[in-house]
Amino acid sequence: MSFTSSLSLTDLRGQYMNGSLTPREVFATIGERIEQYREHNIWIHTLTATELEPYFLQLEQADINALPLYGIPFAIKDNIDLAGVPTTAACPEFSYIPERSAFVVQRLIDAGAIPVGKSNLDQFATGLVGVRSPYGACKNSFDPSMVSGGSSAGSAVSVALGMASFSLGTDTAGSGRVPACFNNLVGVKPSIGLLSASGMLPACRSLDCITIFALHCDDANTLLAVAEGEDATDAYSRVNPFANQSRYYGTWQGMLRIGVLPADQLAFFGHSDYQASYEQTITALKEQGAEIVEVDFAPFIEAARLLYEGPWVAERYIATTPMIQDNPEAMLPVIQTIIGGGAKSSAVDAFQAQYRLKALRKAATSVLASVDCLLSPTAGRPYSIDAVNADPIKLNSNLGYYTNYMNLFDLAGVAVPTGFTASGFPFGVTLIGEAFTDRRLLSIANRIQQYFHLPLGKDQGAFQPTTVSPIANQQRIAVAVCG
Amino acid sequence: MSFTSSLSLTDLRGQYMNGSLTPREVFATIGERIEQYREHNIWIHTLTATELEPYFLQLEQADINALPLYGIPFAIKDNIDLAGVPTTAACPEFSYIPERSAFVVQRLIDAGAIPVGKSNLDQFATGLVGVRSPYGACKNSFDPSMVSGGSSAGSAVSVALGMASFSLGTDTAGSGRVPACFNNLVGVKPSIGLLSASGMLPACRSLDCITIFALHCDDANTLLAVAEGEDATDAYSRVNPFANQSRYYGTWQGMLRIGVLPADQLAFFGHSDYQASYEQTITALKEQGAEIVEVDFAPFIEAARLLYEGPWVAERYIATTPMIQDNPEAMLPVIQTIIGGGAKSSAVDAFQAQYRLKALRKAATSVLASVDCLLSPTAGRPYSIDAVNADPIKLNSNLGYYTNYMNLFDLAGVAVPTGFTASGFPFGVTLIGEAFTDRRLLSIANRIQQYFHLPLGKDQGAFQPTTVSPIANQQRIAVAVCG
Repeated sequence: MSFTSSLSLTDLRGQYMNGSLTPREVFATIGERIEQYREHNIWIHTLTATELEPYFLQLEQADINALPLYGIPFAIKDNIDLAGVPTTAACPEFSYIPERSAFVVQRLIDAGAIPVGKSNLDQFATGLVGVRSPYGACKNSFDPSMVSGGSSAGSAVSVALGMASFSLGTDTAGSGRVPACFNNLVGVKPSIGLLSASGMLPACRSLDCITIFALHCDDANTLLAVAEGEDATDAYSRVNPFANQSRYYGTWQGMLRIGVLPADQLAFFGHSDYQASYEQTITALKEQGAEIVEVDFAPFIEAARLLYEGPWVAERYIATTPMIQDNPEAMLPVIQTIIGGGAKSSAVDAFQAQYRLKALRKAATSVLASVDCLLSPTAGRPYSIDAVNADPIKLNSNLGYYTNYMNLFDLAGVAVPTGFTASGFPFGVTLIGEAFTDRRLLSIANRIQQYFHLPLGKDQGAFQPTTVSPIANQQRIAVAVCG
Repeated sequence: MSFTSSLSLTDLRGQYMNGSLTPREVFATIGERIEQYREHNIWIHTLTATELEPYFLQLEQADINALPLYGIPFAIKDNIDLAGVPTTAACPEFSYIPERSAFVVQRLIDAGAIPVGKSNLDQFATGLVGVRSPYGACKNSFDPSMVSGGSSAGSAVSVALGMASFSLGTDTAGSGRVPACFNNLVGVKPSIGLLSASGMLPACRSLDCITIFALHCDDANTLLAVAEGEDATDAYSRVNPFANQSRYYGTWQGMLRIGVLPADQLAFFGHSDYQASYEQTITALKEQGAEIVEVDFAPFIEAARLLYEGPWVAERYIATTPMIQDNPEAMLPVIQTIIGGGAKSSAVDAFQAQYRLKALRKAATSVLASVDCLLSPTAGRPYSIDAVNADPIKLNSNLGYYTNYMNLFDLAGVAVPTGFTASGFPFGVTLIGEAFTDRRLLSIANRIQQYFHLPLGKDQGAFQPTTVSPIANQQRIAVAVCG
């Protein structure tokens, strides 16, 4: 093994710049780790030496100064296209070979990043567990008996176990956040349309986001800056407002007012360790000077239930047509059951649910306006793979308690680790804000991550912040008033 | 008749202020006109002397300086609630007596306005013609053999014939604009949510707007300022951004760049007079210095077709449930046919149509960004009542060619008269902009109205502008550059 650092962007780039490391060496080590962790069911396809060679050759003729992601290895959830490599969505019969890479993938490659492979997921991105795959249940990076979280299962675990510097996931119900929580990663669920969804197989096309898993917030901001950009071919793509550009990362300083759930709206589903971790997080933030206020999460929780209980399942039906009509047996039974339900709703049902959502959103708007951000547990608890296999629908549903409303409400979210349970399992919280507050949330997440200063991923080294951002900034500023 | 002026706000208020006129005198004249024009089928209910008395008593004890709409008579489309008076939606079996007035109605009354009555409409606001009513076809103010336009038929005709200073309509497909065009009025179709829809019977709840018919833009701005305001009880109500507040009316000056349809996208359905009126309007604007550019209206025209051909009819079905299910014979056959179709679509249909709409909207966004506003004919042609009765669906559909997309695209619109045909029938255009450009559009409409300087309504006197706003402002401004 030719290097001992983490795969974080800042660590790798330093070594590439001073010539002490090459991308080929990094990929040799990644190849070893892929073998080492094969039982984790992380990958559906890893790029062969032949497939990787053009990337190396390209970089060897390039100027590293012109490529912000020079030689950075990344994983791609296998519902996002990489040209020439099959996209399966964890359903082999569905597989196709795309001619073009997804808009976001191409931007990352153009900046020098190198794909490691296509990562395992809950079939058709329908799930939050990571076990719903014919390629095997993806195992947690900290405890292989536990779920990885999903649906972006392999994307998260590959970063936590040092096979990629970052990864692309997708998030419709919480798939870019729950696996971040269970694998000690930062998970950025950007505002809808900040990252183009062109080349992503839709789950619910009106709600889908491509997401980023990274070891820390500094990396996440750099990656977002490369990946984002309006795409004229994606109807849901939007222009990023000036105040949310990458230059504003780190500028959201000063006192923080954070909204949290009142005790009777919290749910840990019997998991006292996660409850304790959450309480420790809140206590620490208070001690560091953040103002913690209880706000009413009821509209968020009701909206969360609409995602699978309401007509939005029809979008999953559309995304998997014609297979769901012509060859449903090619799907896992649990996926077939869920998505098959999407044909049952009427347009009347759809509009009535949208009316209810609109009313809930109005209530949520007032809540959001009262704080710098909201904060909730990212997940109420983790589950073992065996437990999920024994009760696949209900336990999966529990994992969406804190996440399913987010895209229905058109919000931004950043999942950030804040501790470990007594048994050493990772815990984290999600910061929540209005659409296009991504940089504000990342800035606050960075302050939180700096304070807790946890080791990165699973044994991926220590966190070395590039800036100093305390949670509370008590400095008074002298203001000269003229007039 | 105790006064000879128009009923415009500025005219009435001046006489009220100097004591030469009282609201009782105005209503006496209005009562005469109601009798005079009874054959026009304008009203479903007019307030009795007993019903009016409390309004007069209230004003007689009030300070006119505190009431911007002191003694201003207005008509209310009969799908908007006035406390204690039946709301019929032009369907007697549907009728109910509301306990509270609509949010907007109450604001107008609180500002001193007095309701004249509830005005006739296409049943359940489903139509653009004004003939689909068991209370009789509403007759055009200029030519009783012609349609008034609808669905806000009586609201428009009552203002044009001097029975109200202004009126409230509603607009889902074009009902606040087409009748303005056919009756020589300004029709403001505000941004969705600028005026609360609480107390309005929904047509398509996600698209509905309460609208204002007025004699000129100055009145319309004053009325909008009174009526607008966020309503916590209406999920579709929105906060008006600073740049769209009433103080900005009149400030949109300088050179104008106006987008118009290329010749092959215009449709006049064989009506050479309207085509000539439109061409004269464009020629005049060019001569006055406006820059006229052709833009691609194809996405607008395709979206317009989605409104009645797509799943949004399900919203009308929801709005008329349970009647459409339990007692459809209580509806006019044409309405029953249209709304009954709303039960046929699936949620899959609904989401697929929303995807298509989103793609069209993205194309429209680029078009809108290239100009100060768009301009189209408000309607391609008028029809006689007999013609519409002979072919009720198709001719109605033709009237929506330039209007049906507007609320699906979440745009603002202002219809403004620009001329008369050779036979003396009114013609007008609609200015179109992004949501919350209402004051910009009204400012431009005012410049256009000042230039054409048409008489108001049907024989409601001459237009007396309170400001001077030429179409093109060629003045050069001296700028000192420091640096």
